[in-house]
Amino acid sequence: MKRENTPEFKPETTRMETFSDAVIAIVMTLLVLELKIPHIAKGAINAAFLSELYNQLPNFAGFALSFLVIAIFWVNHHQLFHALRATDGKLLWYNNHLLFWLCFIPFPTAFIGEYYDNLITVMLYGFVLFMASVSFNMMGRYAYRTGLFKSNISDIVLKHSLRRGLFGPLVYSAATLSAFISVYISIALFILVPIFYFIPQKIVRMEN
Amino acid sequence: MKRENTPEFKPETTRMETFSDAVIAIVMTLLVLELKIPHIAKGAINAAFLSELYNQLPNFAGFALSFLVIAIFWVNHHQLFHALRATDGKLLWYNNHLLFWLCFIPFPTAFIGEYYDNLITVMLYGFVLFMASVSFNMMGRYAYRTGLFKSNISDIVLKHSLRRGLFGPLVYSAATLSAFISVYISIALFILVPIFYFIPQKIVRMEN
Amino acid sequence: MKRENTPEFKPETTRMETFSDAVIAIVMTLLVLELKIPHIAKGAINAAFLSELYNQLPNFAGFALSFLVIAIFWVNHHQLFHALRATDGKLLWYNNHLLFWLCFIPFPTAFIGEYYDNLITVMLYGFVLFMASVSFNMMGRYAYRTGLFKSNISDIVLKHSLRRGLFGPLVYSAATLSAFISVYISIALFILVPIFYFIPQKIVRMEN
Amino acid sequence: MKRENTPEFKPETTRMETFSDAVIAIVMTLLVLELKIPHIAKGAINAAFLSELYNQLPNFAGFALSFLVIAIFWVNHHQLFHALRATDGKLLWYNNHLLFWLCFIPFPTAFIGEYYDNLITVMLYGFVLFMASVSFNMMGRYAYRTGLFKSNISDIVLKHSLRRGLFGPLVYSAATLSAFISVYISIALFILVPIFYFIPQKIVRMEN
Repeated sequence: MKRENTPEFKPETTRMETFSDAVIAIVMTLLVLELKIPHIAKGAINAAFLSELYNQLPNFAGFALSFLVIAIFWVNHHQLFHALRATDGKLLWYNNHLLFWLCFIPFPTAFIGEYYDNLITVMLYGFVLFMASVSFNMMGRYAYRTGLFKSNISDIVLKHSLRRGLFGPLVYSAATLSAFISVYISIALFILVPIFYFIPQKIVRMEN
Repeated sequence: MKRENTPEFKPETTRMETFSDAVIAIVMTLLVLELKIPHIAKGAINAAFLSELYNQLPNFAGFALSFLVIAIFWVNHHQLFHALRATDGKLLWYNNHLLFWLCFIPFPTAFIGEYYDNLITVMLYGFVLFMASVSFNMMGRYAYRTGLFKSNISDIVLKHSLRRGLFGPLVYSAATLSAFISVYISIALFILVPIFYFIPQKIVRMEN
Repeated sequence: MKRENTPEFKPETTRMETFSDAVIAIVMTLLVLELKIPHIAKGAINAAFLSELYNQLPNFAGFALSFLVIAIFWVNHHQLFHALRATDGKLLWYNNHLLFWLCFIPFPTAFIGEYYDNLITVMLYGFVLFMASVSFNMMGRYAYRTGLFKSNISDIVLKHSLRRGLFGPLVYSAATLSAFISVYISIALFILVPIFYFIPQKIVRMEN
Repeated sequence: MKRENTPEFKPETTRMETFSDAVIAIVMTLLVLELKIPHIAKGAINAAFLSELYNQLPNFAGFALSFLVIAIFWVNHHQLFHALRATDGKLLWYNNHLLFWLCFIPFPTAFIGEYYDNLITVMLYGFVLFMASVSFNMMGRYAYRTGLFKSNISDIVLKHSLRRGLFGPLVYSAATLSAFISVYISIALFILVPIFYFIPQKIVRMEN
């Protein structure tokens, strides 16, 4: 792995970060547009309203889960770019590849929210999250191969981080495939990823 | 409370601010998408148009109120981050928690706009604003506990600000619960918060 | 008018600019969401597609006109903030007031696009643009009164700019009211503003 | 061509870049909103879901293609502005002109996704991409004529870049017109542009 000592000023990184921030912020916010307000007869009793909201619980849960997943992607993206000393033209496209899959998330989120117990919707949701986490890993690995990380970050830390990053694609592929057994296993695995993420770890992190 | 003298340069704060700005800007703008243009027969008389717009008055009022509420959140967010000397990984998540509730606001806004005199819609609206203001307070209190504020801001000012911040959760919980008596009390309280906000105060402020 | 020599660094201005940029960018982009793709029977002849697009011409024209109007607001906003040496808490709210009216524009744009020859839609469109240009003027005048402009900009230039800014509210109020005579006069005036804007002027400008 | 040695600090460029980033990020993200989740009877068999998704394949392809096209525009925009030493008032409007056509892309994308084998939708899609690439070229040529490029970029590189930029308008006009022969030739040409873009070239580039 090649490394160079370059000054901190990285104009390219800045604009890539701004652009990615904007895309991720919009995706997170667009999720709410998939929540449709129920049409209830004027003068209906409160129980009718509550039952309509209750029927939308899967939609709300999908909104919350996807929001959390995208927020984790943003934090990871933030940490990764904070550790970069430079970018190049190819990294730009690795990043665009990631943004493509993140931008797509509102569609399977709305789909799974509407039909949460269906094999196809669950597998589509799992597949899109799988591709998003694969593309994030591809970007990190490319940056490592090309020596784009800051020279003051130890190789052990970087390698550990890259290895840890495989957790996402692994769980999401497991979740997608286990839908053949039961969609509820898949959904449990989708919920597991954020929980795992928040478990404090006594191990080294890339943030250094 | 621990405090450290650190230089002004805070890369983390900058990207968190940019990201939060983007999310809040999008939420404010998305509110208008919930306003549906009425379908009126071509060639209808003007009175038909006016009556359709009149019917949408609650939707317009909901748009304006939520816009104002989110704008106040943005200004408070702006002032809070201006007073921070640094951030950490946990503050990132306190901020994401706040953004989650802000992102959700368009849904209850559209819902209350459509059914403004209903117990459930009013309570949902109040609950989401309550959670947003609670999460803002949680973030401020965490920053205070962890000593993330600039060292040149006096402890008295900070404590006063944190105490003042409790006004939001208090009024919003009162508004949510008073819907059991009358939804119009709740709506009056929703309108009270921005009015209170704009009343000039002769007291110390965090802005320093 | 009071003026102070302060250094160029204006953290508050930066974040206000970023936030305003985000809001304006979103409003411009949301306009396209109001263009609904027509539903045409599969296998229909091309003439059916052309006639559907032809029917949407008013919607396209509304999209283009509002896009141009908001773009002009952005350029003016850009120039105004470039000329400021500092901001204060009140300017923040003058700016939010402007953003409120800009955020509202997609609604009357879609409305006038659907019913372009109606008194009510034309007056609503005119009224919202009138309020947007009034709020822009209010912000500029407040900044002038409070001495927020850079000290190297001459008073004559500033006063000229403020006077020139009255053109917007004047034409938009004229357009709104002339709808009582004919909506086509109003529409002609709406189109006049951008044309006037692009006519080169041999006079002093705020840009300095 | 006039050139001046000016310092690197370009406040105008920064805000134009931020604004353009925001607009482009939003357009890319809005594309997904045109993907409507299919309405399937609850309890339908999986084959019904798969067939609905299969029917949406043209919509997905349109989403992916337009995403890629806009991403290429962003990368080119990024490279162009990186090479500029300054901006002026006219460049601002050349940029707004580009953003107008980019903002419009979601409409023909949704239209072609719904009716991909129709002459009118294909020509409209081609026309909008043609106008976007024309407006990008106009901006680059204006910047060259006015001497806004950095002085350390050789004239040969710039001229080569501008010549290379004509590829977009050429192919898009060819694609638009060849729809008269067959819409599938047009679609093949739409796909050709990104492929050409990613073919590595041993020639000089503007990035220098």
